Amino acid sequence: MSALRIGIAGLGTVGGGLVRLLSEQREALALRGGRELKVVAVSARDRHRQRGIDLNGATWHDDPVALARGNDVDVVVELIGGSDGVARQVVETAIAAGKPVVTANKALLAHHGTALAVAAEKSGVALGYEGAVAGGIPIIKALREGLVGNRITRLYGILNGTCNYILSTMRESGRDFGDVLAEAQAHGYAEADPSFDIDGVDAAHKLAILTSVAFGCPVNFAGVHVEGIRHITAIDIAYAAELGYRIKLLGLARQTEHGIEQRVHPCMVPMEAPIAHVEGVFNAVVAEGDFVGKTLFQGRGAGAGPTASAVAADLVDIARGVRLPVFSVPAARLAKLPAAPMERHTGAYYVRLMVLDRPGVIAGVAAALRDEQVSMESMLQRGRSHDPGAAVPVVLTTHETEEAAMARAVARIARLDTIVEKPCVIRVEQL
Amino acid sequence: MSALRIGIAGLGTVGGGLVRLLSEQREALALRGGRELKVVAVSARDRHRQRGIDLNGATWHDDPVALARGNDVDVVVELIGGSDGVARQVVETAIAAGKPVVTANKALLAHHGTALAVAAEKSGVALGYEGAVAGGIPIIKALREGLVGNRITRLYGILNGTCNYILSTMRESGRDFGDVLAEAQAHGYAEADPSFDIDGVDAAHKLAILTSVAFGCPVNFAGVHVEGIRHITAIDIAYAAELGYRIKLLGLARQTEHGIEQRVHPCMVPMEAPIAHVEGVFNAVVAEGDFVGKTLFQGRGAGAGPTASAVAADLVDIARGVRLPVFSVPAARLAKLPAAPMERHTGAYYVRLMVLDRPGVIAGVAAALRDEQVSMESMLQRGRSHDPGAAVPVVLTTHETEEAAMARAVARIARLDTIVEKPCVIRVEQL
Repeated sequence: MSALRIGIAGLGTVGGGLVRLLSEQREALALRGGRELKVVAVSARDRHRQRGIDLNGATWHDDPVALARGNDVDVVVELIGGSDGVARQVVETAIAAGKPVVTANKALLAHHGTALAVAAEKSGVALGYEGAVAGGIPIIKALREGLVGNRITRLYGILNGTCNYILSTMRESGRDFGDVLAEAQAHGYAEADPSFDIDGVDAAHKLAILTSVAFGCPVNFAGVHVEGIRHITAIDIAYAAELGYRIKLLGLARQTEHGIEQRVHPCMVPMEAPIAHVEGVFNAVVAEGDFVGKTLFQGRGAGAGPTASAVAADLVDIARGVRLPVFSVPAARLAKLPAAPMERHTGAYYVRLMVLDRPGVIAGVAAALRDEQVSMESMLQRGRSHDPGAAVPVVLTTHETEEAAMARAVARIARLDTIVEKPCVIRVEQL
Repeated sequence: MSALRIGIAGLGTVGGGLVRLLSEQREALALRGGRELKVVAVSARDRHRQRGIDLNGATWHDDPVALARGNDVDVVVELIGGSDGVARQVVETAIAAGKPVVTANKALLAHHGTALAVAAEKSGVALGYEGAVAGGIPIIKALREGLVGNRITRLYGILNGTCNYILSTMRESGRDFGDVLAEAQAHGYAEADPSFDIDGVDAAHKLAILTSVAFGCPVNFAGVHVEGIRHITAIDIAYAAELGYRIKLLGLARQTEHGIEQRVHPCMVPMEAPIAHVEGVFNAVVAEGDFVGKTLFQGRGAGAGPTASAVAADLVDIARGVRLPVFSVPAARLAKLPAAPMERHTGAYYVRLMVLDRPGVIAGVAAALRDEQVSMESMLQRGRSHDPGAAVPVVLTTHETEEAAMARAVARIARLDTIVEKPCVIRVEQL
């Protein structure tokens, strides 16, 4: 069979890793894919940058859209990034030209996934995006194919390695957020502008994609409730350990009576849950199916090698002639399920208050909870201040309650004149 | 597209689960698979047994081979079990008749996998066996497709839920092997004749299959070094904890300079390794690839629901028209790699001796190790006997050494007249 002619738009970390992978595994891939996988065209911003990869034999395009349109290319790999602009143009152009596309661009899919799936299926081409979620973990394939016989009841995961690295390091070292973030930036585990990661946006992109594959509904990034990890302190991490939890930034999705619930936020994860032990830059996804039960998939969530591995898997599928509905079911048949409003979420909560250590403080907090029908499960006030003007932490956990009631109770508490900071609220998950 | 007409041979636990799954998920599967998945024929030993499943609309066959031959069936699911006899006949007949086959029969594939792959590929039909290894975990798909861009450097896993349940329960309860086995049998987690599980044969079947997919070589069950868990005592489990390990029955495969090493035996697994925390009836597989790094897949390893989930995934692949080389590469191109002899294995060892508590015992043991050039890492003798004729445990660990030297050293030690039982040797794994 003739070679699969690959055009790669974007030669950053992942693009470079992919070129290396396709070169190093050339023979094995030809055997496994049934045909040679050959890079015939590439495009990047700077033609003259030293990348340490061999691009001989590949046509250089200054314009990635021209690459996507070219007749010399059978499949287009988009590794430019960004939800719009050139990346989107490249993907749309390739699909319109009847070429399968492989992308690792989670922002693009989170914002335009449904439309791109419709276009790809109309064009009769594959749209692969294994590399867009959880790096090297073949989680898209697991959901779309491996667990296809199940109704997925719940899905959750550690989807951002930067946040998991920061939270793991905070726990191990006892240090505070800002300090560990600075170190992560110095090590290259966090970007110079880290907001995309630490505010939960990156995890939300990935969750929106996973939700669509798992529940067969259109990608609804706007329907994800997103909170980041900036407000987590060393005190919270220490209290979590004392209460039998670890704090993880999770993305969670499930079908509720109010619709599809999608949320990204820090969670108190019970120490017994396997995902509590996924540390550092690793990602993990748990999918619960009605027949299979609980399955867990763990691996490196980012980096040249893992992401190139995922992109290569999509390319071999295309070489093998596999073409499946982009999000498990044909795009035209995706079920338009409503987004469950976060106010209707129910669960248990951890709340840390910084209070002035005066008589009656706890009574005021307890009254606020009572007035909103929130039932307290435990309360801890460990330290006492020697300075009567200084604040001390008080930590409480609640029984299961509704988000809206909890929010009202926390607002009441925040207004008490003995409370000196915005309360830190972390949801407790039963996993 | 017309329905995929399924014939099921074998209506035990898994067969019943599959019929239920195909009925409950009928609409979803039709949407995902692009066509209806319909059970049109069934066969089992006893037609009149109450199974609590609806077999209306399916033709009954007393002879499963006739079912496999029948023109009314597009795909044959073999759930009879056993490495030979009827199960093998059913699979061979279906393949010869040009029908794709799905089986959950690990014994059959461990013994005849290569020949069946050759036959299936010659016939141009798919041979699915996701359900044969690790229950509901889509590990075959992960290796054959999701990680296809990697050279797998090592693969290992907890492949037998019965053994993992027994070892987990022994650890949690401090009880001994026989006691926990009896309880597992009472709960249905172990068979009346448990030897297949606890002697490691079942795990070895699964390992031989995984090795073939991961390394692209013929299935070589005879090349697996197999040891079970009968000799593991509560003392060993307690010492393991003290030394920072958990004892797990692992199946491990890697490519070494001497060939492919395949082994199933109890291992000392470092507590930091994620697989150390996989407890009870769960299975897990870790695959290490040169690009992806370490990936872990965890889930229920047996039972009607998980296995039916795996079988259904294979059926949907067939409905979707996916047909891939059975063991990653075409059967004719499987690399005939030599089996690495176990004597050449190198690693660290844990040895528990039951010794008479007399002066000079340790000196004798140390001399035996020295004479075989085995370097001791640690030695523990915790209890002392009040009865001078009673034996006490002495535990030692070694630095990395060769299996053959270790075996000679242990044989020397066993001959010392202060040693009262066969030494218990457990390999220590760096995971």
